[in-house]
Amino acid sequence: MSEQIYVGVDIGGTAIKVGICNQSGDLLHTYEGPTESDKGTDVILHNIATYAKRIVEQSPYEWEQVGGVGVGIAGFLDIPNGFVKFSPNLGLRDVRLKDYLEEHLNKTVRINNDANVAALGEVWAGAGKGVDHCVCYTLGTGVGGGIIVNGKIYEGFNGMAGELGHMQIVPDLEAIQCGCGKMGCLETVSSATGIIRMAKDAVERGDRTSLSLVEHIMAKEVIDAAKAGDEVASRIVNRAAYYLGKSMASVAVVLNPQRFIVGGGVSKAGEFLFEQIRQEFRKYTPDAIAENVEIVAATLGNDAGVVGAAGLILRS
Amino acid sequence: MSEQIYVGVDIGGTAIKVGICNQSGDLLHTYEGPTESDKGTDVILHNIATYAKRIVEQSPYEWEQVGGVGVGIAGFLDIPNGFVKFSPNLGLRDVRLKDYLEEHLNKTVRINNDANVAALGEVWAGAGKGVDHCVCYTLGTGVGGGIIVNGKIYEGFNGMAGELGHMQIVPDLEAIQCGCGKMGCLETVSSATGIIRMAKDAVERGDRTSLSLVEHIMAKEVIDAAKAGDEVASRIVNRAAYYLGKSMASVAVVLNPQRFIVGGGVSKAGEFLFEQIRQEFRKYTPDAIAENVEIVAATLGNDAGVVGAAGLILRS
Repeated sequence: MSEQIYVGVDIGGTAIKVGICNQSGDLLHTYEGPTESDKGTDVILHNIATYAKRIVEQSPYEWEQVGGVGVGIAGFLDIPNGFVKFSPNLGLRDVRLKDYLEEHLNKTVRINNDANVAALGEVWAGAGKGVDHCVCYTLGTGVGGGIIVNGKIYEGFNGMAGELGHMQIVPDLEAIQCGCGKMGCLETVSSATGIIRMAKDAVERGDRTSLSLVEHIMAKEVIDAAKAGDEVASRIVNRAAYYLGKSMASVAVVLNPQRFIVGGGVSKAGEFLFEQIRQEFRKYTPDAIAENVEIVAATLGNDAGVVGAAGLILRS
Repeated sequence: MSEQIYVGVDIGGTAIKVGICNQSGDLLHTYEGPTESDKGTDVILHNIATYAKRIVEQSPYEWEQVGGVGVGIAGFLDIPNGFVKFSPNLGLRDVRLKDYLEEHLNKTVRINNDANVAALGEVWAGAGKGVDHCVCYTLGTGVGGGIIVNGKIYEGFNGMAGELGHMQIVPDLEAIQCGCGKMGCLETVSSATGIIRMAKDAVERGDRTSLSLVEHIMAKEVIDAAKAGDEVASRIVNRAAYYLGKSMASVAVVLNPQRFIVGGGVSKAGEFLFEQIRQEFRKYTPDAIAENVEIVAATLGNDAGVVGAAGLILRS
């Protein structure tokens, strides 16, 4: 039989993205179709199976060459059984996703959560290629985390490992409540949402900042203002970087990883942000551990999800 | 051939303890002899080999039944190569420990650091028996840590995983310097040394406490005073428990373990201490993760080292 290929599926709230990878993790083809999450479970499941078949049909490959189908999805999962307990943004509850797809696609199917899958994608074919011990942060609406140990996703006792956004890192006196119900989570300060909130607070307080002229403050505006020398914006970005670096210090003494990979919208701030993160990390990490650790930007962008999903077949 | 046995060696600064375990981790025989660390590397190595042979000779078992010899030692190690880079309390530097012992004992030899080995002992035959995802804290002079993943020691990229005592958990404004050079490590507040320091500070400050009548304050006196209702002592023990629970919360979101096992002298405070740790842990850990986690006392005491060392043969 000719070359094996692997199909990755990244299920988002509005679009399902599918991709074909070869054995090295190169993304050869992609296809995207609507999730239609408003139409209910059956339609969503049907769409996933349809798009997975379609991308192979449209490619030069045969279905026989497919070594398996991996799926990344946000929500509470029973990973070994491929069962979606609850996926709030898709409206799925108690869905036997793996069973359904194996029946309809006649291939091995593995599912895992979106942050883990993105981490695996980066380690398979992105900023962590060849690095067996990696920890990934995704700085978006929230702060996602994925842990790679010996080149594979580390899931923990019941699939909840790597919930880095919910490390409670802000001291009690400065902590605000997180969506998870707890106080002072990393996500409250280092996500795009956290940065926007701190900026709005500053404007409302009447702090002197160029951000007071911006109608809709997004994380990008805050970062740009900080780069341009705005003191208030600089303080906000530095606070995000401070807690990120400090949380990495805690992760480093626990896991002793070789590399931290940071992706998501906020990471586009680039070296301006990364230098601050590295500085805080080194300040709070014993030298013997810190000296071997790199903190780098993710390289796959939005493709990390499909690539990592395809990687589930070879790497889990 | 009859039953296989495993020899564990726990090398301390003053004594070397050796033990024989069966395949289930039951400790069948122990022997202890002086380390003689003042007499130099050759004598220490000779003693290790001699005691390992002697315990088998003195037992009903034959040397042929020995499945391997495991060694736990404090210091900086190159674990895969069984090389001791530096062990300050033994005065060893650049010693090929594994090679020496394999040559003199003619058995497979594995070495690992003392905190990891104690953790493995507890998981093999103590408070973590049958639990694959465990994190162990040892509260002694310092705070040691060991991480067990899938029933085996997790070493990280270069053998430094599980350095839980050096998680920098105390906020900057209250942080004091740790022996490692960094500020605010867990070890500065939750070790026996940390508890004694806080007690002495309180007495020197003139705080009203029964501890001011104690000539040599040890951690036990502080805990006993707290149990008896002394407010100053209670505050100190609660502070130690607060940071322990908070550090466990960080570990839990990273690793999603099933059980925390706490050993070492300070843990003898018992449920009085454990209830406080659990309360802080639950306060700072998302419910979905916290609800599956137990925090329990170690059960092997000083035997954890030899048992875990013997376990290195079957479990690494």
